[in-house]
Amino acid sequence: MIEIKTELTTNKKQKPDLNNLGFGRFFTDHMFVLDYKEDKGWHDPRIIPYQPISLDPAAKVFHYSQTVFEGLKAYLTVDKRVLLFRPESNFKRLNVSNERLCIPAINEELALEALKQLVAVDRDWIPSTPGTSLYIRPFIIATDPCLGVSSAKQFQFIMILSPVGSYYKDGIKPVRILVEDYYVRAAPGGTGAAKTGGNYASSLKGQEMASKDGYEQTLWLDGKEKRYVEEVGSMNIFFKINGTVITPALNGSILPGITRDSMIQLLKAKKIAVEERRISINEIVEAYHNGALEEAFGTGTAAVISPIGELKWLDEKIIINNSEIGEVTQMLYDTLIGIQNGSLKDEFSWTIML
Amino acid sequence: MIEIKTELTTNKKQKPDLNNLGFGRFFTDHMFVLDYKEDKGWHDPRIIPYQPISLDPAAKVFHYSQTVFEGLKAYLTVDKRVLLFRPESNFKRLNVSNERLCIPAINEELALEALKQLVAVDRDWIPSTPGTSLYIRPFIIATDPCLGVSSAKQFQFIMILSPVGSYYKDGIKPVRILVEDYYVRAAPGGTGAAKTGGNYASSLKGQEMASKDGYEQTLWLDGKEKRYVEEVGSMNIFFKINGTVITPALNGSILPGITRDSMIQLLKAKKIAVEERRISINEIVEAYHNGALEEAFGTGTAAVISPIGELKWLDEKIIINNSEIGEVTQMLYDTLIGIQNGSLKDEFSWTIML
Ligand SMILES: Cc1ncc(COP(=O)(O)O)c(C=O)c1O
Ligand SMILES: Cc1ncc(COP(=O)(O)O)c(C=O)c1O
Repeated sequence: MIEIKTELTTNKKQKPDLNNLGFGRFFTDHMFVLDYKEDKGWHDPRIIPYQPISLDPAAKVFHYSQTVFEGLKAYLTVDKRVLLFRPESNFKRLNVSNERLCIPAINEELALEALKQLVAVDRDWIPSTPGTSLYIRPFIIATDPCLGVSSAKQFQFIMILSPVGSYYKDGIKPVRILVEDYYVRAAPGGTGAAKTGGNYASSLKGQEMASKDGYEQTLWLDGKEKRYVEEVGSMNIFFKINGTVITPALNGSILPGITRDSMIQLLKAKKIAVEERRISINEIVEAYHNGALEEAFGTGTAAVISPIGELKWLDEKIIINNSEIGEVTQMLYDTLIGIQNGSLKDEFSWTIML
Repeated sequence: MIEIKTELTTNKKQKPDLNNLGFGRFFTDHMFVLDYKEDKGWHDPRIIPYQPISLDPAAKVFHYSQTVFEGLKAYLTVDKRVLLFRPESNFKRLNVSNERLCIPAINEELALEALKQLVAVDRDWIPSTPGTSLYIRPFIIATDPCLGVSSAKQFQFIMILSPVGSYYKDGIKPVRILVEDYYVRAAPGGTGAAKTGGNYASSLKGQEMASKDGYEQTLWLDGKEKRYVEEVGSMNIFFKINGTVITPALNGSILPGITRDSMIQLLKAKKIAVEERRISINEIVEAYHNGALEEAFGTGTAAVISPIGELKWLDEKIIINNSEIGEVTQMLYDTLIGIQNGSLKDEFSWTIML
């Protein structure tokens, strides 16, 4: 076992109200930190009391956003086991992001071991009411205090934990989504396939415009032709057209979602036709007019599944399945949530017990 | 005058060796800080001793890179006056970046006043040897500790100062530049025209590849067709073809450089033909083959002007003006540097005396 120093807090925080957790607002008593220096590599893994990060004002992360992150969840089962959902996939993806952002690769085994120990230390923070979970946020920031535009030579890898509520209070609920026709999230050759802050900073404006129009999320089209569907806010997107479930193929500017991958595997196992391919917004509009557009949903760690009740594209309002949750959407949600929280058998070996 | 509290340090740092300053490695004794809260707006402007920034690990800047910055310089004239070069343009551009990044606008007058007071406090840090100056880095970071992907409700606006050396030790020197054919810095509808960290994070990889090939900088083509010239690293670009100076028009994905604008004004004043228009990499290659490509240079606050001695595009090596500094390039450099450091008359009212 890899040696991780642990310094326990002497000043435990009060736990938040489990009925009012929201998302990413409360944090547990401890955090994990790992340092990188050019001559030492990644070193000094440690669990310490949750505390502020103190950085020189010239630290590169503040200026050039050299940073990557991940998001995954731990669940408490009814019989009080703690399950992590596909954590190796997250650390693998973190290293893919690292490569794009010129950040040195982390040791994925060390990260997983550290995560397990951290969650174990803060185990009593994992909420148990239905739909709640412990959200885990690993992230890396460039810390050297130097304003030259070049890759940093010092980094910190940090993991923090946040008990989160059910994304939608009354179970899943169809959302209304605006298809963005001006702003762009990612382009070929850009950073769209990496989980890096700049993608999210760049998406805020579209999100703000959608909100003003009364929409909950933005659907992003490709950055080159503004024709092909890419993804939604922090979710991948799926459409059911004429009985076949279609999701945009991973083209280099879409984040390879782990929920997306799980959904594809679930659909295959259930013998429902599923295609990963390029799909234009026009094809969606046409399918809608032909009555062939049966369901649409987003997938991501935070909400697991968000059924899409309405898509707005220019002047066209596309109402999907009467703004109700589709059958396949509901089945996928029930199945995945069941596997994640341990109430269904995990045929895929996706979950890891602490 | 706007009231800015000032707390002076009791522990002055040692000044660095003026012959070995480099860029953005040393910082002065003080910094300026201004806070933003939703209910209070921007408030509490203050000059304090240079010190670390302490932030919750969940602060939005670490995760979603909601941040903008600026870069400008102060010069010490031979008769010991302190000149700021077009600082209002920088604060104006900061607010343009703010708009794109959903950051509340700052009061440009307050920022300028704060900058003057800060530079005055650290006046003895302004280096005086030829080519040196005081680099000023204003920046804004999103500070609220919340992991939801949405615009922050708390920000800090900070200014730090760094005495910097001449970008090239022996005066200006032609650089070799690789034209990037795979990675993309910015796309239409993206954040290219804003000075925000994500653009720089995304550029690191191209920069690293160029370096490995022995090139000093990357020339970015447009994100849509990878055909039109955009800009170089942290500089705008100019070509002299058949007696006319051409620079890419501001198209929404190029940073509107203040040095760029100054060069255009200087060229017009000198009655040298100058065009802002779309220019493809093929046009450059053709001009080279026809013997019409006379000079090329980058412009930016850090280096002022970088003559370009070589451009590499796919298998083509374009040697410009025998890898020597062109006449117009040298004239522009001498003129602008002269205005900036007060040795030439400032016909344009670009400089502000402290
Ligand atoms: C941009 C983006 N797309 C898609 C996803 C979904 O990925 P995952 O299913 O791994 O959470 C996320 C993250 O949650 C995201 O940030
Ligand atoms: C991407 C980029 N382009 C161009 C420039 C040049 O702008 P300015 O002349 O205002 O320094 C900069 C900044 O210095 C930059 O970061």
